[in-house]
Amino acid sequence: MATKVTAKPYLKGIRRFFRSLLLALLFLLAFKGVAIAQDPDWQAAYQSLQVTIDTVWVLLAGMLVVFMNAGFAMLETGLCRSKNAVNVLSKNLIDFGVVSLAFWALGFGFMFGDGNAFVGLSGFFLSGLDTSPLVGEAYRGVFSSLSWAGVPLDAKFFFQVAFAGTAATIVSGAVAERISFFGYFAFSALLSTLIYPVVGHWIWGGGFLSEWGFQDFAGSTVVHMVGGWAALTGAYILGPRQGRYSGEKSSAIPGHNLALATLGAMILWLGWFGFNPGSTMAADPAAISRIILTTNIAAASGAVGAAITSWVVLTKPDLSMIINGVLAGLVSITAACAYVGLGSAVAIGLVGGIIAVFAANFFNRLKIDDPVGALPVHLVAGIWGTLAVGLFSVGPGINPWHGVDGPPLGFLLGGDLQQLGIQLAGILIVSLFAGVASLMAWLLIEYSLGLRVSPKAEAMGLDISEHGLEAYPEFRSR
Amino acid sequence: MATKVTAKPYLKGIRRFFRSLLLALLFLLAFKGVAIAQDPDWQAAYQSLQVTIDTVWVLLAGMLVVFMNAGFAMLETGLCRSKNAVNVLSKNLIDFGVVSLAFWALGFGFMFGDGNAFVGLSGFFLSGLDTSPLVGEAYRGVFSSLSWAGVPLDAKFFFQVAFAGTAATIVSGAVAERISFFGYFAFSALLSTLIYPVVGHWIWGGGFLSEWGFQDFAGSTVVHMVGGWAALTGAYILGPRQGRYSGEKSSAIPGHNLALATLGAMILWLGWFGFNPGSTMAADPAAISRIILTTNIAAASGAVGAAITSWVVLTKPDLSMIINGVLAGLVSITAACAYVGLGSAVAIGLVGGIIAVFAANFFNRLKIDDPVGALPVHLVAGIWGTLAVGLFSVGPGINPWHGVDGPPLGFLLGGDLQQLGIQLAGILIVSLFAGVASLMAWLLIEYSLGLRVSPKAEAMGLDISEHGLEAYPEFRSR
Amino acid sequence: MATKVTAKPYLKGIRRFFRSLLLALLFLLAFKGVAIAQDPDWQAAYQSLQVTIDTVWVLLAGMLVVFMNAGFAMLETGLCRSKNAVNVLSKNLIDFGVVSLAFWALGFGFMFGDGNAFVGLSGFFLSGLDTSPLVGEAYRGVFSSLSWAGVPLDAKFFFQVAFAGTAATIVSGAVAERISFFGYFAFSALLSTLIYPVVGHWIWGGGFLSEWGFQDFAGSTVVHMVGGWAALTGAYILGPRQGRYSGEKSSAIPGHNLALATLGAMILWLGWFGFNPGSTMAADPAAISRIILTTNIAAASGAVGAAITSWVVLTKPDLSMIINGVLAGLVSITAACAYVGLGSAVAIGLVGGIIAVFAANFFNRLKIDDPVGALPVHLVAGIWGTLAVGLFSVGPGINPWHGVDGPPLGFLLGGDLQQLGIQLAGILIVSLFAGVASLMAWLLIEYSLGLRVSPKAEAMGLDISEHGLEAYPEFRSR
Repeated sequence: MATKVTAKPYLKGIRRFFRSLLLALLFLLAFKGVAIAQDPDWQAAYQSLQVTIDTVWVLLAGMLVVFMNAGFAMLETGLCRSKNAVNVLSKNLIDFGVVSLAFWALGFGFMFGDGNAFVGLSGFFLSGLDTSPLVGEAYRGVFSSLSWAGVPLDAKFFFQVAFAGTAATIVSGAVAERISFFGYFAFSALLSTLIYPVVGHWIWGGGFLSEWGFQDFAGSTVVHMVGGWAALTGAYILGPRQGRYSGEKSSAIPGHNLALATLGAMILWLGWFGFNPGSTMAADPAAISRIILTTNIAAASGAVGAAITSWVVLTKPDLSMIINGVLAGLVSITAACAYVGLGSAVAIGLVGGIIAVFAANFFNRLKIDDPVGALPVHLVAGIWGTLAVGLFSVGPGINPWHGVDGPPLGFLLGGDLQQLGIQLAGILIVSLFAGVASLMAWLLIEYSLGLRVSPKAEAMGLDISEHGLEAYPEFRSR
Repeated sequence: MATKVTAKPYLKGIRRFFRSLLLALLFLLAFKGVAIAQDPDWQAAYQSLQVTIDTVWVLLAGMLVVFMNAGFAMLETGLCRSKNAVNVLSKNLIDFGVVSLAFWALGFGFMFGDGNAFVGLSGFFLSGLDTSPLVGEAYRGVFSSLSWAGVPLDAKFFFQVAFAGTAATIVSGAVAERISFFGYFAFSALLSTLIYPVVGHWIWGGGFLSEWGFQDFAGSTVVHMVGGWAALTGAYILGPRQGRYSGEKSSAIPGHNLALATLGAMILWLGWFGFNPGSTMAADPAAISRIILTTNIAAASGAVGAAITSWVVLTKPDLSMIINGVLAGLVSITAACAYVGLGSAVAIGLVGGIIAVFAANFFNRLKIDDPVGALPVHLVAGIWGTLAVGLFSVGPGINPWHGVDGPPLGFLLGGDLQQLGIQLAGILIVSLFAGVASLMAWLLIEYSLGLRVSPKAEAMGLDISEHGLEAYPEFRSR
Repeated sequence: MATKVTAKPYLKGIRRFFRSLLLALLFLLAFKGVAIAQDPDWQAAYQSLQVTIDTVWVLLAGMLVVFMNAGFAMLETGLCRSKNAVNVLSKNLIDFGVVSLAFWALGFGFMFGDGNAFVGLSGFFLSGLDTSPLVGEAYRGVFSSLSWAGVPLDAKFFFQVAFAGTAATIVSGAVAERISFFGYFAFSALLSTLIYPVVGHWIWGGGFLSEWGFQDFAGSTVVHMVGGWAALTGAYILGPRQGRYSGEKSSAIPGHNLALATLGAMILWLGWFGFNPGSTMAADPAAISRIILTTNIAAASGAVGAAITSWVVLTKPDLSMIINGVLAGLVSITAACAYVGLGSAVAIGLVGGIIAVFAANFFNRLKIDDPVGALPVHLVAGIWGTLAVGLFSVGPGINPWHGVDGPPLGFLLGGDLQQLGIQLAGILIVSLFAGVASLMAWLLIEYSLGLRVSPKAEAMGLDISEHGLEAYPEFRSR
């Protein structure tokens, strides 16, 4: 049984430390006779308050991650054409609805339910025993892989379902403007009930990658790389939009509303303040303060990196590149956010922002049409961020929340190559699985329900063909 | 005096339980002699921290509810025509300003001030004695109906004024594109100082409906049904917009910006994470975690229900129907959110989303012109949500926060019909009062200040006629 | 050394009070023998939980202030023309990136690092000793001016870097539609690393103005007036936009999207719930509840004041005036938010909203072209808000968090003129410094890098000339 290995083990360490401390105090006091009677009382009060604060924090973080749906919706809509705006908006709005139901019924059980090293096999519909909150090693129930978190199971689920929604919505942008509404939802359901939870189980659910010591604090691999592979395979299978490539010529198709796209990026920036520090699933003041800083400064560096790179390479500071630089910076820091110093966070975000610009060009040359730049941001920066753990980790013993269960000293800071090797192995295995599974899912849908709208419908725009509505019926287009 | 009956009695139960526990411990320790000296100290510390966490939670929830103004503003603006956008935006922006002042001066006193079974008669301008925080039954002051909440009075008021703003803004959408700016504000002031607070007093302020055992946890009736009746009477009195109905023909007038409307719906979804779990007015970890889940899954189910229904009935998945499905799911779960299981929440939201589609059609056939769909969402789903308490409640003793003061086992889960009868009685009484009072308020304004702009002003658009401004002066319309 | 003088001394008072209380209890218990052993334990637990709650609160507040960037981006974009939308969006998006890096490297050290009465000289790159959290007078480290706050240094920095970002972004609107992208960033970097931190050091970093007793709770002077002077000098140096003034004729240039502008204002209203009550840097339940109420009711009053004034003076309720009224109300209450009653907050906000309308006219007559109204809102209301402390303060001893270190009874409530004199002196000194330093910075950039785009580029729009992109490539303009 792999379920005793925790996905985010540092907290287990802290909890264990505090528990030991309390026990030690208890022993001390036991010898004082009368005092022993009331000590358990303030300890119970202390624990109850700790659970309360942790819960408020986790719910706040979860809300911010749910609100990322608004960020993705505005980002993707703004970067697509107005004739497909209703379609993109509809997908993003209902996506979290579908995921909320599917992840409750199946996904959460596959990901965090007790099972084997490959997949969870219990806890569907949030059912089964669970003795949270705050029981740690005395935990009894079917979600052992989350026993390190002291908050009620409902709060754990809320945070995790918000994450699952994020993974699904990453795909939406890369396949936009040509996929059928129904085909998209079929894939979204498969991704959020099967592909994402299985990889998640390996890394956060007590599966084999967590046993190997693979480190991904808040999901550069679990969320972004998995979403990125699903996006890449989807964009490849679907082929480019009409008029995007003809012969050797590549014609950029500009987004119709950069104000909405920028708003989306800013909402996502805010959302990441839940995504990363919320992954502690506990209000550890030092840890969450540090993580919010590494997250913020990596976003800042990603913005600056992409702005300068686009200024130098493309001769002008390109807003859509700055937007993707912010997001690439955020994705890059996600795996390592709890384990690195601020200077390293700057480096990680800066590199993330720079490679996002070049990666966009790379996929363009491969004629893989990715309307919103999901591949540079989620796939490429996701890989970079996962490797960055092995390069920049400060190692255990520096920060109280980073124990021996966390990553060792990074290679660039004087450590050895072992963790980098594990990270690389994890990237390869996850890529292979997520790539092949996504490909199969896309093909399955293509040969059963059909995946791409008709050329006529695409030319007309999906808003009219799929929804019978226009997003801006009053404005005249050029 | 009705003021000793609390509106949300479950918390009183919890507080009472904890207080008894602490008292019991105190007694135990009293017999130990020396120990008694310091116990009150950690208990005071415990209580002080509990109040602090509760306050942070209530303020966070209140902020989210205030931010719902942005959600309503975007939703309503997006679903109206661009020639009335400035008007809709202005109404939504200044609405909360007017309500903030009016509810401080009068509304809060009428709603929560000590008084009789029908209306509160003290505490205007937030004045009068109040010994909060955390005094419970030892409470002395003029807001007895809120004594069950332990946070400072200022925090209680902040959360409640945000609620009052919500009730006012519901009306705005239904009467849009034809009401005069001044007429709207006259009504808004009457609603938020008189109609809403009086109904609120009956149910949450210690009035007669709370004594009867009527249950409305977060306001399906108090906020949404009251706002819905005000909207229905207003839309009826005003009559439809020019060109909306001619003879038997109904011409839909599409909204001018569905991106804004979708953003609005997503902001409202976020805001409801304050609206429902914040109605605990305390950071009870188990309760707020569960309520946030029932709220979220009902919104998800409402989205899916409306999407499928519109797909089947209207042949295409209609984005504006999905938007209203999300909101109908949220309104539906509002009364019962603390009292039902997740499966029931799915059913409640699903039914809410489905009836929202049919109800839109129903009001259309009655030729009641409701530009944004406020009636299906707030009035119809508000009624359904209020009934759902009597159908789906898990009953006392299952969840720690749901005591005998809460609703008994729901009819569909094997309970009897008594609670359903009380809910129905409450719906009828509130409908009668809110309907008649709103009608009188509308007529009063119509025959004094006038209510509808001139046909010429309506044709030109209210932006030019009422504000002398255009929302998008640069874009050419069709 | 000025560093022992705290910027926001009231909290020091509270902390000192609680510390004394705990010490007194400890003494009491010491005489009881056995009891002394465990008391430090629950006190340590109490303190640890207090730090945790405080940290969650400060991070939440910081997030809201960071999100104000989205508010400013939407506000400024909406109030400018569509041909400059990409430029305004880019500036606002990357601004916080630049500030995040610059304030970490230099600004925070200049502002809060130990140094002299004029500037901080330590703590660059967040380095140097720091023994936070919760050590108060036992604090050892290089950020003594923030020792009154008990949260981890990382949390203090996060909140303060968000503030610095706000100061920078105020300028953006006033110089919009004609400044070069690079010139703007050169100024933004100078402002956030030098000008803003130096003034901040005087008032919040233990500098000479705080020693004089100058009071600015959340930054009417530090943030808004400083940003306002930078905006005024910039707008003056740059001169008006093409076609704005010809001879005596003034031609208003309407903003291109009032829906975005209104959304921006609503996001800023939300953000202020972090800005003002978060400036406690501690979750003091009574203080934060009161501050959120004074903040909200001042915004409401500003909206109503500007609406009525524009109705009377301009004959119609002007949406852009209502927007600026909300913001002027918020800026006005910022200095005094912790020190005044609700009635005074109404007066402060109302006056703020009214003078914003007249001030807009005043700058227009001076032919200083301020596309978004940054000067009436931030400069004029900032001055008014700073004076309001001396006029409306309730004085020490009324509210537990307002001790003798806070402002004395205000002049209009029966106090003397001394505090008003200090406020006035501070306003003059800060105005002189911020005005002259900004002017020098603008001139330095003008004569080195150049500041204004070419007339041709301005006519074409900065989107094409500076970024090679259009915000709305599909919509046809008039």
